[in-house]
Amino acid sequence: MSDTAQVQPLRVGLVGHSFMGRIHAQAWQTAPRFFELSRRPQLTTVCGRDAERANQFAEAFGIGRVETDWRALVNSPEIDVVDICVPGDLHAPIAIAALEAGKHVLCEKPLANTIAEAEAMAAAARTARSAGVRSMVGYSYRGTPAIAYARQLVNEGRLGTIRHIRAHYLQDGIVDENFPLVWRLQQEKAGSGALGDIGSHLIDMAAFVTGQSLTSISALTETFVKHRPLPDSVDGLAATAGEGMGAVTVDDAAVFSGRTNAGALATFEATRFATGRKNAMRLEINGSGGSVSFDFENLNELWFHDHTLPAAEAGFRRIHVTESEHPFLDAWWPPGHGLGYEHAFTHQAVVFARAIGSGADPSPSFEDGLYVQRVLSAVQASASDGARLTPISSVAD
Amino acid sequence: MSDTAQVQPLRVGLVGHSFMGRIHAQAWQTAPRFFELSRRPQLTTVCGRDAERANQFAEAFGIGRVETDWRALVNSPEIDVVDICVPGDLHAPIAIAALEAGKHVLCEKPLANTIAEAEAMAAAARTARSAGVRSMVGYSYRGTPAIAYARQLVNEGRLGTIRHIRAHYLQDGIVDENFPLVWRLQQEKAGSGALGDIGSHLIDMAAFVTGQSLTSISALTETFVKHRPLPDSVDGLAATAGEGMGAVTVDDAAVFSGRTNAGALATFEATRFATGRKNAMRLEINGSGGSVSFDFENLNELWFHDHTLPAAEAGFRRIHVTESEHPFLDAWWPPGHGLGYEHAFTHQAVVFARAIGSGADPSPSFEDGLYVQRVLSAVQASASDGARLTPISSVAD
Amino acid sequence: MSDTAQVQPLRVGLVGHSFMGRIHAQAWQTAPRFFELSRRPQLTTVCGRDAERANQFAEAFGIGRVETDWRALVNSPEIDVVDICVPGDLHAPIAIAALEAGKHVLCEKPLANTIAEAEAMAAAARTARSAGVRSMVGYSYRGTPAIAYARQLVNEGRLGTIRHIRAHYLQDGIVDENFPLVWRLQQEKAGSGALGDIGSHLIDMAAFVTGQSLTSISALTETFVKHRPLPDSVDGLAATAGEGMGAVTVDDAAVFSGRTNAGALATFEATRFATGRKNAMRLEINGSGGSVSFDFENLNELWFHDHTLPAAEAGFRRIHVTESEHPFLDAWWPPGHGLGYEHAFTHQAVVFARAIGSGADPSPSFEDGLYVQRVLSAVQASASDGARLTPISSVAD
Amino acid sequence: MSDTAQVQPLRVGLVGHSFMGRIHAQAWQTAPRFFELSRRPQLTTVCGRDAERANQFAEAFGIGRVETDWRALVNSPEIDVVDICVPGDLHAPIAIAALEAGKHVLCEKPLANTIAEAEAMAAAARTARSAGVRSMVGYSYRGTPAIAYARQLVNEGRLGTIRHIRAHYLQDGIVDENFPLVWRLQQEKAGSGALGDIGSHLIDMAAFVTGQSLTSISALTETFVKHRPLPDSVDGLAATAGEGMGAVTVDDAAVFSGRTNAGALATFEATRFATGRKNAMRLEINGSGGSVSFDFENLNELWFHDHTLPAAEAGFRRIHVTESEHPFLDAWWPPGHGLGYEHAFTHQAVVFARAIGSGADPSPSFEDGLYVQRVLSAVQASASDGARLTPISSVAD
Repeated sequence: MSDTAQVQPLRVGLVGHSFMGRIHAQAWQTAPRFFELSRRPQLTTVCGRDAERANQFAEAFGIGRVETDWRALVNSPEIDVVDICVPGDLHAPIAIAALEAGKHVLCEKPLANTIAEAEAMAAAARTARSAGVRSMVGYSYRGTPAIAYARQLVNEGRLGTIRHIRAHYLQDGIVDENFPLVWRLQQEKAGSGALGDIGSHLIDMAAFVTGQSLTSISALTETFVKHRPLPDSVDGLAATAGEGMGAVTVDDAAVFSGRTNAGALATFEATRFATGRKNAMRLEINGSGGSVSFDFENLNELWFHDHTLPAAEAGFRRIHVTESEHPFLDAWWPPGHGLGYEHAFTHQAVVFARAIGSGADPSPSFEDGLYVQRVLSAVQASASDGARLTPISSVAD
Repeated sequence: MSDTAQVQPLRVGLVGHSFMGRIHAQAWQTAPRFFELSRRPQLTTVCGRDAERANQFAEAFGIGRVETDWRALVNSPEIDVVDICVPGDLHAPIAIAALEAGKHVLCEKPLANTIAEAEAMAAAARTARSAGVRSMVGYSYRGTPAIAYARQLVNEGRLGTIRHIRAHYLQDGIVDENFPLVWRLQQEKAGSGALGDIGSHLIDMAAFVTGQSLTSISALTETFVKHRPLPDSVDGLAATAGEGMGAVTVDDAAVFSGRTNAGALATFEATRFATGRKNAMRLEINGSGGSVSFDFENLNELWFHDHTLPAAEAGFRRIHVTESEHPFLDAWWPPGHGLGYEHAFTHQAVVFARAIGSGADPSPSFEDGLYVQRVLSAVQASASDGARLTPISSVAD
Repeated sequence: MSDTAQVQPLRVGLVGHSFMGRIHAQAWQTAPRFFELSRRPQLTTVCGRDAERANQFAEAFGIGRVETDWRALVNSPEIDVVDICVPGDLHAPIAIAALEAGKHVLCEKPLANTIAEAEAMAAAARTARSAGVRSMVGYSYRGTPAIAYARQLVNEGRLGTIRHIRAHYLQDGIVDENFPLVWRLQQEKAGSGALGDIGSHLIDMAAFVTGQSLTSISALTETFVKHRPLPDSVDGLAATAGEGMGAVTVDDAAVFSGRTNAGALATFEATRFATGRKNAMRLEINGSGGSVSFDFENLNELWFHDHTLPAAEAGFRRIHVTESEHPFLDAWWPPGHGLGYEHAFTHQAVVFARAIGSGADPSPSFEDGLYVQRVLSAVQASASDGARLTPISSVAD
Repeated sequence: MSDTAQVQPLRVGLVGHSFMGRIHAQAWQTAPRFFELSRRPQLTTVCGRDAERANQFAEAFGIGRVETDWRALVNSPEIDVVDICVPGDLHAPIAIAALEAGKHVLCEKPLANTIAEAEAMAAAARTARSAGVRSMVGYSYRGTPAIAYARQLVNEGRLGTIRHIRAHYLQDGIVDENFPLVWRLQQEKAGSGALGDIGSHLIDMAAFVTGQSLTSISALTETFVKHRPLPDSVDGLAATAGEGMGAVTVDDAAVFSGRTNAGALATFEATRFATGRKNAMRLEINGSGGSVSFDFENLNELWFHDHTLPAAEAGFRRIHVTESEHPFLDAWWPPGHGLGYEHAFTHQAVVFARAIGSGADPSPSFEDGLYVQRVLSAVQASASDGARLTPISSVAD
């Protein structure tokens, strides 16, 4: 709990109140109750185009102010942080305007729909940084304690030389061919499909845990169901089918492989057609000294194999990442009392608030977000060119 | 989200602000954001004997009022609900006074330290009920979606005739012989050790899921470490050792077996000495038609075996209890995005608020809490009498 | 592979050729191919009352000689080892006659149906031992590498002071109420039900792994299905129902708890009504320094928790017990290429052949078998006497 | 057990007696004891260049005859089956000579080191077939019951339209940079590294389970450790280091992705550098109607998700593939009593002996082996050409 004498409020304005908006709201309100923060977040404003829905949201979360135009929010003198939880095509204009207005910006992932947008956002972030304005992209899984602990083990050298990165994000939300054509299945809104929505998390997570970046990639993408019913109503991936059919213009699945700057072999698969897998974001890293393995469907567990032990007693051990020594855990419950999905967002809010409080740059930065964007574009370029091994640095929109 | 036109506030006063107090506070504040509630909880007051610590807590959680005397809280006209999160020896006086003052009462478990206290509390609850005053005991695991779904499967007859109940609660918090003599290890404060603290959850959970109650029990209890250092500072089970030694007056572990009113064989084990098990609250039910199996260390999973399937394709299936069809889940995230420990408390708050709103009696009731108390006493009676099979109905303090 | 110059044959006569007979035959024939043995087993004779079936068996396994009277086998000068794989009521007469005839005896478990028989067998074994005649009881799971490795970890002190033994043997073979009344469900043939058939394995295994023995026990037993169809044909637990009904005279399930001579708390459950559990023989040992956990349904795995590691990196590790450093494994395949159920019997044959070859006494001995018998009787005595805690030493038939 | 009246012997000559030779010998000797076979295998001859080692082997396995020249074996009138268990460069000459001599041939995998050899072998098999001579390639994992059951589920349409094939074979045998340069690490002996040794199993297994074949592939391969100590002694992958260093001329790891003739997306990874993974041959198939998942490290389990069930009760179920209804299982033990690695070889022997007995062609055929060879070559071609998507049909040596 915070020492109130020194605490300054950190007034947050939230843009968007769908799935991501709800979880960000919960995160901003939870963070100061459980973590010491020199800047105490206050979720003061929510912004949404539909005033009635925005008001309902404000009522539920006890938020005092509602805006329907993000420009008003961005320019308000009563806002310190702009938190962007809207579709990708709006990220660049809002983020750049907010940074220029001197607001700290937390922007949902993927950073943008194109490299050009992402580059402009990264440039705006660089400029703003010199004025003490912070920016962060919402690769929230970095706040999952097991992922953060995996990174720590790698940093401590426990894995030795990394040989393999194996990252899968398996979902099954749209296996049904009658699932409607929501915005996430439209290229102009979403940029890409499984690739950008969930594959982007894999790319960031692999870089975060290993500290390595991809230098080249070879890829295949696939759209299994090429036409779907037009939607009646839309809310993220939850929707009901209406009349008429439309073309799916994004990938259903993407598989890609490449090498990192340190010589590891990395494989990725992102799909919405892995029947029975609900949110199986999996990462395994194999190094000369050991391995770690993670599956988000058991988010409180990290499996660690210490290859320096005698062979007879070595094996993947299930670490329940709920000890007070684990990242973020000293704020929470006793060992074994697991956290949930939303806690990663609370931790993201904590990291951002602390960075603002201490005048440091948080991570993942917009540069990190731009890196992911480049990989996404290289994947699409390779998939369009017979899976040709494509240097990450070579791609443009 | 709630339709605000019809919403009446439900003003909650929280007594105690340690581990349980914190999680109850989070629950009260989270519940109205994610659930439709006709009475909207507002955590308006916290009560604690140490004014400074209580004030810090109020500050962190944004609670407007602090009391240091529970009697003031209980008699305040600005309180609708008294939520009791203090050691067991205080449950009876606070709960009875609150009920008599017309406050709805949520009381942490176990209900009391003795049967006499529990009977007095249940009697007070009966009297209060006729005046529309509600009471509930905090066997929070009933709010864990996987547990609630297990009950649903049993209720639907999917398990057939129940043959076995197998319930274990395994922890390892005090394996170290130098862990100090905290209040939970003192009989006069805690009533019993692992038995009452975690074994009580097993007894309630088994009754909740199966709808059956124990008729007799045979038990062994053990105190492995009979003397421990006196504590320097105390906070639940977290403490540091000071000077001097004292006698441990509660059980470290309890094992007990019995039969239910429907002829099932039930086994229980509660221990704080299961090295490597952090919060392994496990329940398996075997019936003629199928089985369910649960381990809290993977709280989002329920394993279900459907014995009516052909043998070749039958097997325990891992149900990730995160579908919108699962209990409580329509309020939360997409499938596969797991919940955490604290969500069970949010759901408990929801159940209580809804019961108050609809004028129904919530469960688990004080009667349910009294039943657990009788089993706990029978366990102690049996353990003191050579494990003799002891009828639950026969025990008194 | 054996150095043939010094190898003497070890001529084995097998009594019985049902389930156990087949697996013993495979074990005797496999052992000398993969293990160095100074006495090389040769399965020369099979004995069965039904000459036709015995001849078929001999044909399949390439066994040269068939007997229909066990007395002829026992007294044959061309037999070195008598291997007893018939129901429990025949163990004592065959084993004692064979020992008196100077034959080494391997006898299936449980050793006998009564303590009196078991005592007579143990006495015969003692007498025979002085003449260099060896005896062993077939608690075959000691030959499962993961179990043998668990024992090794305990012996090396890796678990510290043992606090808990938790042993379950869960099957579901007779959940169907129409499953017929085979000999294993008749007290006069089988002695007891789940208790003696599978519970006996738990008792031996717990003693083997921990090196501790039970001093007292409290028990409940249950027969869920009290009448069953008379069988049409019988083969162990595989049978078809015929006409008429008969009373089940053995337990369907037994649960018992007690203390060991070193102060550990031990719980046991043996049942044939755990729907969905096929052969879930489970053992967990918790000690001050660590824990091991095993489930036969994943027989190549041992889970080990090293409690001396820092809390942040500790956890149950899955040891795939297939390294050449593991017990018995240097004779087999590369790491990760698992063994099966029958290999434990091959290892049992190896242990027995080596003991004979080196002139040492193998274990488990008939004394070990008698200990199990005493515990089984104490369980039945306690269950008949209101679960009273019953000293193991106190029981007689 | 076989009905001996009609049984004809099937005289087997084994070429090679290392790891594979031992397991084939055990398989030939075990098969007729547990399975009905109209041709009863008799392992009459073993062939090895080192007469002393071959004699030791013959002694251990009770084999009557030893040859040191495979030509003598191939041309012997007392041999019905030639079983080839030597390095890949010898497969073609022995197999072709044996087929031409009218012997049935079982040949270890991969079929050959080059496409040209494999084509010549397939041509010889076609010619021989018209004379009633049978041939089979040793993709033994088809005999693993869980794999065979997965195929059955696919065949029955339980998976619907297949979308994803995900196949990994992870080992860690040569992670240590001082592991010596054994023959399996030399291109001229082994053809390729992880790719041909273990990746070939994945290719065959994916085709077997799904009934689909790859049409094109994109690949990356990697040799992490480029120089290793020359070996002192060699036995498969088990060896000790000697003096001097040599170049590793095969891949340490291969990752490849492609599409099947039915539009599924398939990913493969074969590596010897996945620290902590011993023999993790994994296969997951996702279809519109369900999924199956397998890991050889738990070889008795198949995980099946039935997507036609209501979402609330669906989930991957762990089928312990030990029921008598499962492939090959009626010959073995009761449910839950698992089989081991070697049983797949016994089943392979059974399939081959039955095909010979019934005059049918067994599978996998040499054509199936040639298909795998073409994929292996396409992988190498793609890896040499910037991961270019390479049609399987286009490749030649």
